[in-house]
Amino acid sequence: MKKIPAAILGATGSVGQRFVQLLDQHPLFEVVCLTGSDRTIGTRYGDTCRWLLADPMPEWAKNIKVVATDPAQVDELVIFSALPADIALTVEADFAVKGSMVFSNASAYRMAADVPILIPEVNADHAKLVDIQRKDRGWKGGIVTNSNCTSTGITVAFKALLDAFGIEKAFVVSMQALSGAGYPGVPSMDILDNVIPYIGGEEHKVEIEPLKMLGAFDGKKIVDASFVISAHTNRVAVTDGHMVCASVALKNKASVEDAIQVIRSYQGPEISQNLPSSPVPVMLYRTENDRPQPRMDRMTGKGMTTVVGRLREDPLFDLKMVINSHNTIRGAAGGSVYNAEVLHKMGYLS
Amino acid sequence: MKKIPAAILGATGSVGQRFVQLLDQHPLFEVVCLTGSDRTIGTRYGDTCRWLLADPMPEWAKNIKVVATDPAQVDELVIFSALPADIALTVEADFAVKGSMVFSNASAYRMAADVPILIPEVNADHAKLVDIQRKDRGWKGGIVTNSNCTSTGITVAFKALLDAFGIEKAFVVSMQALSGAGYPGVPSMDILDNVIPYIGGEEHKVEIEPLKMLGAFDGKKIVDASFVISAHTNRVAVTDGHMVCASVALKNKASVEDAIQVIRSYQGPEISQNLPSSPVPVMLYRTENDRPQPRMDRMTGKGMTTVVGRLREDPLFDLKMVINSHNTIRGAAGGSVYNAEVLHKMGYLS
Amino acid sequence: MKKIPAAILGATGSVGQRFVQLLDQHPLFEVVCLTGSDRTIGTRYGDTCRWLLADPMPEWAKNIKVVATDPAQVDELVIFSALPADIALTVEADFAVKGSMVFSNASAYRMAADVPILIPEVNADHAKLVDIQRKDRGWKGGIVTNSNCTSTGITVAFKALLDAFGIEKAFVVSMQALSGAGYPGVPSMDILDNVIPYIGGEEHKVEIEPLKMLGAFDGKKIVDASFVISAHTNRVAVTDGHMVCASVALKNKASVEDAIQVIRSYQGPEISQNLPSSPVPVMLYRTENDRPQPRMDRMTGKGMTTVVGRLREDPLFDLKMVINSHNTIRGAAGGSVYNAEVLHKMGYLS
Amino acid sequence: MKKIPAAILGATGSVGQRFVQLLDQHPLFEVVCLTGSDRTIGTRYGDTCRWLLADPMPEWAKNIKVVATDPAQVDELVIFSALPADIALTVEADFAVKGSMVFSNASAYRMAADVPILIPEVNADHAKLVDIQRKDRGWKGGIVTNSNCTSTGITVAFKALLDAFGIEKAFVVSMQALSGAGYPGVPSMDILDNVIPYIGGEEHKVEIEPLKMLGAFDGKKIVDASFVISAHTNRVAVTDGHMVCASVALKNKASVEDAIQVIRSYQGPEISQNLPSSPVPVMLYRTENDRPQPRMDRMTGKGMTTVVGRLREDPLFDLKMVINSHNTIRGAAGGSVYNAEVLHKMGYLS
Repeated sequence: MKKIPAAILGATGSVGQRFVQLLDQHPLFEVVCLTGSDRTIGTRYGDTCRWLLADPMPEWAKNIKVVATDPAQVDELVIFSALPADIALTVEADFAVKGSMVFSNASAYRMAADVPILIPEVNADHAKLVDIQRKDRGWKGGIVTNSNCTSTGITVAFKALLDAFGIEKAFVVSMQALSGAGYPGVPSMDILDNVIPYIGGEEHKVEIEPLKMLGAFDGKKIVDASFVISAHTNRVAVTDGHMVCASVALKNKASVEDAIQVIRSYQGPEISQNLPSSPVPVMLYRTENDRPQPRMDRMTGKGMTTVVGRLREDPLFDLKMVINSHNTIRGAAGGSVYNAEVLHKMGYLS
Repeated sequence: MKKIPAAILGATGSVGQRFVQLLDQHPLFEVVCLTGSDRTIGTRYGDTCRWLLADPMPEWAKNIKVVATDPAQVDELVIFSALPADIALTVEADFAVKGSMVFSNASAYRMAADVPILIPEVNADHAKLVDIQRKDRGWKGGIVTNSNCTSTGITVAFKALLDAFGIEKAFVVSMQALSGAGYPGVPSMDILDNVIPYIGGEEHKVEIEPLKMLGAFDGKKIVDASFVISAHTNRVAVTDGHMVCASVALKNKASVEDAIQVIRSYQGPEISQNLPSSPVPVMLYRTENDRPQPRMDRMTGKGMTTVVGRLREDPLFDLKMVINSHNTIRGAAGGSVYNAEVLHKMGYLS
Repeated sequence: MKKIPAAILGATGSVGQRFVQLLDQHPLFEVVCLTGSDRTIGTRYGDTCRWLLADPMPEWAKNIKVVATDPAQVDELVIFSALPADIALTVEADFAVKGSMVFSNASAYRMAADVPILIPEVNADHAKLVDIQRKDRGWKGGIVTNSNCTSTGITVAFKALLDAFGIEKAFVVSMQALSGAGYPGVPSMDILDNVIPYIGGEEHKVEIEPLKMLGAFDGKKIVDASFVISAHTNRVAVTDGHMVCASVALKNKASVEDAIQVIRSYQGPEISQNLPSSPVPVMLYRTENDRPQPRMDRMTGKGMTTVVGRLREDPLFDLKMVINSHNTIRGAAGGSVYNAEVLHKMGYLS
Repeated sequence: MKKIPAAILGATGSVGQRFVQLLDQHPLFEVVCLTGSDRTIGTRYGDTCRWLLADPMPEWAKNIKVVATDPAQVDELVIFSALPADIALTVEADFAVKGSMVFSNASAYRMAADVPILIPEVNADHAKLVDIQRKDRGWKGGIVTNSNCTSTGITVAFKALLDAFGIEKAFVVSMQALSGAGYPGVPSMDILDNVIPYIGGEEHKVEIEPLKMLGAFDGKKIVDASFVISAHTNRVAVTDGHMVCASVALKNKASVEDAIQVIRSYQGPEISQNLPSSPVPVMLYRTENDRPQPRMDRMTGKGMTTVVGRLREDPLFDLKMVINSHNTIRGAAGGSVYNAEVLHKMGYLS
C-alpha cells in the first residue's frame, strides 16, 4: 500500500518534533514536508532544528528542507499542525479550503461549533462534523483538533463514569509537566524548588473542552455534556506527564469497586480500536495506594494510555481519583496522529 | 526577667532542630534540656545531631548532653515535643501529670476532646481546654498541640471567610514539601521528576482537624465547625512550604473583592498579637496572578504568615484561591513556640 | 537451544530489579531463582518487591518464591549477584566453590588479584583469570565482577586513548546520579537544589579500578596500567546517568581531531562483539558543544554505549572531554549480563 | 554623614535586582537612579520590574521612574553596572569619562590592562589602576570590575595557598547554579534531571581571570600570577551557589593540616576589613566530609564568605578541595558593592 504524504506545520518546535518522532516509520503516513519560521526556511531540518528528545532524530527528517507555512507551497493531503494558536487561526482554514485534512494541536478552532475536538476512544463519531464543515464552509478538506493536554486524561476517565453512572459535577486540580509549556518554556529559576499555581488560559480550557468532547453529536451539532467542572491548574517540576486530582459527583451512586470496574473495562468505539496509535489498554487502573505518578506511569501504552488510581470515596461528592496522561504524546502529537488514523479508517482521507 | 527553662523532646530530628533554631535567643524560654533516642543519650548534641538547617547550630545547643525522653529525668516546666505520634501518646501525658505544659507537634492528642489544636490567631480561646484537662484528668500541667502542617494555612484562611460569610463546604488539594516527611523522609529517587499523590493519613487529618480548630469553645468543650472538607494530598519536589488549592462554598455570597478585603484585614484575637512569634501580617494577600509560590513566599513574616492569592470565582462553589504556609515553621515548631507564648500570656506557665 | 538456568542474588533491591528487567526474555539465560533478605523469604516476588522501574515487572518474575541467599539452596550454574559488599564477600566464594559462575555487581572481590573486573569491550581477555581461580583456589566455578559504575565510562573512553596514544595521567570529576546510591538511597532533602561533593569510598575506587581494567593479562596475572588518576566524586540531582569531566595527559601527543577519530572508531575485541548486550556503538561521540547530558544520552545503545563529547585541548594536560554512561545498566546489571554472555561464548558456562 | 548618590544600570535584570536588594539601607550609598531597557523607560520600577527575589522589593525602589542608560541623563558619582557585556563596552567608558566611578559586573573591561578585577580581600591594591586609567585615558572617573562568579571563590581560596606555599598549576571543575545564567536563563526542560556540561565562554574566563587577580601590581601594571589553570564548567539544577572541585600543585609542599590552617587564618589586606560588605569570616573551612554544599553553605557570612571543605591529598598534584561561593552575591552584585566600599575608603569617591 502506498503511504499518504503528510506535512508537519511548525516542525521545529517541541510538539512538531514529537510529530516527527511519532510519524517515523508510520504505516499509513509518510512525512514529506516540514514547515518552520522565517529563520529556518531553506535550511535542512537536521541543521536547523534544536532536537529536544532523547531518542535521536530520524534520518529521513534530517535532509528535508524546511519550507514556509504557506498553503501555496504545501499541498499534502494530510497536515499535522503544531502551530501557535494565533497563526493556526488563519493558516489552518486556508489548508482546509484547498482540500487538506488538518490535524491540529492548536486551540484556535477547538471551540468552533463545527470542528471536533477528537479523542477517538471517547468521541470518534464527532469526526463527522467534518461533513458539516464541508457543507457549510465549502471546505474541500477539514480541521480536526486534539484536546488540550490537561483535558485529555480527564475526559477519557470521565467518559467511562459518565456512560455508567452520569456525572453531576467535578472538581479537578492539575499538576502539569514542564513540556506542556513548550521550549524554552518555563525558566528553571521559576520552577526549581517551587510550584507555579497559574497557567495562562488553562483553567478555562479545562472547564469547557471536556464538556464538548463528552457531548453528543446529533447529526448536525454537538450537544455539550451538561455538568460543571471547576479547575485549578498548576505547574510542577516534572518533565512529562500531567497529573490530575479529581472529585466527581455522580448522577447514580456507585461503589468504589463498581467505578474501578468501569474504568478497567472501558473500551472506545470499535472504530477507535486496533489502530497503530490506539491506546492499549485504553485505561490502566493501578492498585497501589501511591499511583499513578508521572515519572513511573507516563509511558504506559507507549504514552497513549490514561492511567487512573486512588479511586476512593469523597466526603463531599462521590468519588476521588488521580489521573495521569502523557501530555506531549497522548495530549498532543500522539493524539493528532491517532485522530488521523481514525479519519483514514472512516474514509475521509481519500 | 528570668527566662522559663524548657526542654525539647526528640531534639535531633528535623522538627526538633527547628525548635532549637527558633528558640535560640527567645525572650521568654531558655532551652536547658534536649532529649533523644537511645543511640544519642549521653552524647553532646553538637556531636550527635546531623544538623539539617542552613543556619548554623546555636553555640549553646552544641554542649548540651542529650538525655532520655523520660519524665523522671526531665522536669522543665515547658516541654516542646517533636516526638513521633506513637511515643508521644504515652510520654506526653506523663509529663502533663507531673506538671509540665507540653507543646506538641505530634498528632497523638490532637483529636482528644479536651486537648486544643491551637493556632493562636484563629482559636486562642481553645487554650482554656487545659483547665478541663486539669479538672477531669487530674493533670498538674497540660497538653497543647499544634495543627497538622497542611491544615494550618487552610485553617487561617478559612477562619477569615467563616467569620465573614460562613462556609458550607470546601475542596482542598495540597502540594506538600519534602520537609513535611521528616528526615531521611522521601527518597530522592521517588520524587525527582515526579509527584507522589499520596501521604499516609494526611487526607483524613486535613478533613477533620480544621473543623475542630474552627469550632467554638463553649466553656466545656469544642463544638466543631459544621461544614465538610474534601481533601487530596500530594508530595512535590519542594524543600519547604505547603501549597493548597482551595474551592469554598460560602453560606452568604461574597464578591471576590470582598473576600480579598476580608483576608487582608483579618486579625487574630488580641491575646495572639504582639508576641515574639506572632505573624506579621497574619495573612498576606498577593495580587500577582501566579502567587503564592512556595520558594518565593514561604518566609513571609519569618515563616509565620499565611500567604493567599488567586482569589477568583469558582463555577461550582463560590471562590477559588491558593494558600501557602511554611510547613516546618508555621505548621510545626514555630506554631508550638507561638502556642507557648500565648499560654504564658494567659498565665498558664506559672 | 535450551537456556541456562540462572539465579539473581539480592533480587529485590534496585540493582536486583535491573537484573530481572534486563534478563527478561534473554536468549541465553532463564532466571529461575530469586533470593532476598529474611523478611522476603517464602513470599512471591510480585508481592514482596517494591518495584522501582517504570517498565512493568515481567510476569514470570511475579510468581517466583523468594529464597534465602544460601548456596545450599541455590544451585544454578549462573549467578547474578546484586548483594551488598559485606555479604558478597562470604557468599560469592561459596557459590564459586560449588561450581557456579558468579557475575557480581559487588565491590568485594574486585581488587582480588585473580578476579577480573570485566568490561568486555575493554578487557575480555581478563576473563581467563577464572582459570587461575580454579587452579589456585580449587573453585569449580568462579567470580567475575563488573566495574564500579563511575569507573565504567572512564575506562571505556580511556582504553581507546591508551591504545592509540598512551596515557600519562588523568583528572576526573564525576557528577553522579541518584540511582547509584540504591534505594532508598539519597534523601530528597539532601539533594534538591543542592550538590553533595562526597560519595563514601568512591574516589578511591575510581582511582584504582580503571588501572586494573586497563592492565595487561600476562597469562598469570594482571599488570596494572601505569598511570595515575586523581578523582573527585559528586552527587547531583539526576535520576540515572553518571557524567565525568576528564582531563588526560597523553604519552604521545595527539590532535583533538585524531582523538575524536580514535573514540569513534574504537572496537572491542572480537569476542565482545555481536552479543545480546554488546553496546552498539561501543562509543558515540557527540559533536554538539553541550553534550553528552545524562537525561538525553543515557539510553544510547540501550544504555550500554559510552557517550563522549566536548573533546578539546587542555592547557595543563593534553585533552579535556566529557563522558556519560548509564550507571545502573552499563555500570551495573547490564554490565554483568554482558559479562555472562562473554563467558558463555568463551565456554566457561558448560 | 550624607550618603553618596548612586545609580544602578540595568536595574530590572536579575543582577540589577540584587544591587537594589543589597543597597537597601546601605550606610554609604543611596540609590537615586535606576536605568532599564527602552520598554521600561518612564515606568515605575515597582510596576515594570518582574521581581525575582524572595525578599520583597524595597519600598523606596518601587517609586523610582526608570530612565535610559544614557550618560547624558545619569550623573551620579557612583554607578553600579549590571549591563550585558556588549552594552557595557560602550556605555561604561562614557560614564568614566564624565567622572563617575563605575562598579561593573560585566566582563567587558575585565581584561583591559588598566582595569582592575577587584576582590578586596585578595587584591585591594589593584584599585590603584584607577590612577592609571585617569592618567592614560583622561577619565575623570574610572571603572572597577568584579570577578566572574565562578572565578571568585577559586581566587579567594587560591590566594591563601599562593601566599603560603606558591601554586604551580590547578585543575578546577565547576558545578554552577542557574541564577548565574540570568533570567529567564536556562530553560527548565534543559536542566531538570540533567547536567549541562557547557557554559559559553566560561572556561576561558576561569582560566585567565584568577591569574590577573592573583597578580602583583607594580605601580604601573598587573603582573599576572604565573601558573596555569585548566577548567571544566557545568550547569546543575541548583538555584544559587557555585561549587568548584579543585586540585592544586604547590611550589612548596604542604600538609593537609597546614593548608587547612592557612585557609582558616587568611585575612585580606587591612583596607578590605570592617566594611559593611566585608565577608566575616573571609573563608570558612567546614570539617564535615560532605561539605560545602550550595544549599547549605551559600548564605555563610551573608553570602560573602568563601566556604572551603574536603581538603585532602591529591595523588597527582598536592591537594584536593571543594569551594563554594554565592554567585549572585559574592560573585556579582555583592562583590561590586564591596568594591565601592573599598574605593570609598581609599578616597576615590570624592
